[in-house]
Amino acid sequence: MLFGKNSTWNPDGQHIYVTGGSTGLGLSLAIILVKRGAHVSIVARNQNKLDDALKELEEHRQHPNQKLAAHSFSLDTAEESAAALEAVCEPHDGRAPDAVFACAGSSKPKFFVEMSAEEMQNGMTNGYWVQAWTAMAAAKKMVRDRTKGKIILVSSTLGYMSFVGYTSYSPAKHALRADTLQSELMLYDIDVHIFFPPTMYTPGYEEENKTKPKITRDIESTDDGVTAEAAAVALFEGVRAGHAHITADMITTLFRASTRGVAPRHNIFLDPLYDMAAYIIAPIWKRSVDKRVREHRAEHRQYLVEAGFFA
Amino acid sequence: MLFGKNSTWNPDGQHIYVTGGSTGLGLSLAIILVKRGAHVSIVARNQNKLDDALKELEEHRQHPNQKLAAHSFSLDTAEESAAALEAVCEPHDGRAPDAVFACAGSSKPKFFVEMSAEEMQNGMTNGYWVQAWTAMAAAKKMVRDRTKGKIILVSSTLGYMSFVGYTSYSPAKHALRADTLQSELMLYDIDVHIFFPPTMYTPGYEEENKTKPKITRDIESTDDGVTAEAAAVALFEGVRAGHAHITADMITTLFRASTRGVAPRHNIFLDPLYDMAAYIIAPIWKRSVDKRVREHRAEHRQYLVEAGFFA
Repeated sequence: MLFGKNSTWNPDGQHIYVTGGSTGLGLSLAIILVKRGAHVSIVARNQNKLDDALKELEEHRQHPNQKLAAHSFSLDTAEESAAALEAVCEPHDGRAPDAVFACAGSSKPKFFVEMSAEEMQNGMTNGYWVQAWTAMAAAKKMVRDRTKGKIILVSSTLGYMSFVGYTSYSPAKHALRADTLQSELMLYDIDVHIFFPPTMYTPGYEEENKTKPKITRDIESTDDGVTAEAAAVALFEGVRAGHAHITADMITTLFRASTRGVAPRHNIFLDPLYDMAAYIIAPIWKRSVDKRVREHRAEHRQYLVEAGFFA
Repeated sequence: MLFGKNSTWNPDGQHIYVTGGSTGLGLSLAIILVKRGAHVSIVARNQNKLDDALKELEEHRQHPNQKLAAHSFSLDTAEESAAALEAVCEPHDGRAPDAVFACAGSSKPKFFVEMSAEEMQNGMTNGYWVQAWTAMAAAKKMVRDRTKGKIILVSSTLGYMSFVGYTSYSPAKHALRADTLQSELMLYDIDVHIFFPPTMYTPGYEEENKTKPKITRDIESTDDGVTAEAAAVALFEGVRAGHAHITADMITTLFRASTRGVAPRHNIFLDPLYDMAAYIIAPIWKRSVDKRVREHRAEHRQYLVEAGFFA
């Protein structure tokens, strides 16, 4: 692990389960896996999107006996997530998948003081539980089957850092990055990877922009996002390289190096350089954002008055 | 903020609300605040413990007009937490407290594959929501009252890093450290601080040891914990110094410097040195722990067999 890539994980012939596989990152990743010869099962809620996605996967089929499947499930609860996993495994003699990519999730940015308890809980469900329940069902099944598989969680740049607007989302993405699973599932030789994508130009991104506060959009306006395809490539290559924390852009790489905790390093020479760069860049960024938040106070108060917050 | 302490926060005469104030860290902190002349309200569940704690607080009373109060509430839901805050504010003309210390919380370590969905959810409730709901109620009230107050959350060293045994607790403590609130509540000039205590020798610690897996206890056996009193002093001094992230021991300080994200620094000269030290020490620690986890595989499998996991 010291000098980077030393693994040659090959999904060819493996059964791989991708949640959130009907759109965005999940779909792009599923396509990569199908092209590599994997049996791919996707799960999402919307049957129409699943039908379209499955058609797209079929276009990339490599072998006639490659098993491609789409199942409609909600993954909001432990029960539904376990049921989804069972349905996914059924055509594979009920055996645990070789790898599970938990790509499902969504974000609904909003001011903290305007949020209801339900909206806060939905943030945790759609950012954390929707993946944690799948990881739990998969871990139990892999251990019972003695499958030395892989579990991949999808956090966000907002799992390393955060700012105004993400009080329901960023805690969920931080919760995913806790590295406990990586340590604990070593007991069973199961690998855990966490992906930290930046802004991805996906249908989910368009959806979250509908509720995103103006100040949050302003702060993000200088961000360079990535396409779902580019993010999926980075994720796939990161898993192949055996990286515990995987990033898809330079900014998040700097945060990875400077927010590492006990996560295993990628490269003992490059990582300290990233860390040093972050040491200089992060406070400059933070100071400029803090300034914008403070300058936004009067306008925000006016907004809250008009929204009836004080009424 | 560049060169450390530059704040002189003085709780004298302020109304301060401490959750989990009947025992451990919360009680020790409440005593410090009473000694400093603050009006202190504590909330916890158990009425007997609250009665004992209030007696202890009374012993440290500085003025006859100091308002010391104890209220019994569960803080598990948004509704209960909001009701607790209202009860706490009632003797203070219903005004928001000047500072809220969310010290309530507990941990129940257990193997991931043995946990039920309910146990996982309890981990998030007792590690995250029990504080997030209080922060939400307090933020809304402070904004409505135009109180430029302080909200202090209590995470853990396990909010910076993690290892086997803490799959229900560490994600919750990571969720608390997301730094979103610190950024967002700048809109209202409300300060947010997060405390990261190491092992504290408290009744809560004895409770969590009852379910703690052997491998987790083994890994922790070399830890130097701190007393609740020492932790409370570090927390109080950290808030006085205006630190966004507050620690109470050297190991957690190293993690603070090396897991900082965009959290404001304490000292631009010392923090890089801590970061460099962590760069060397953390992987050594991680490697030794990984080795112990791997060596525990056979014993753990035997344990699971005996526990009926494969049955």
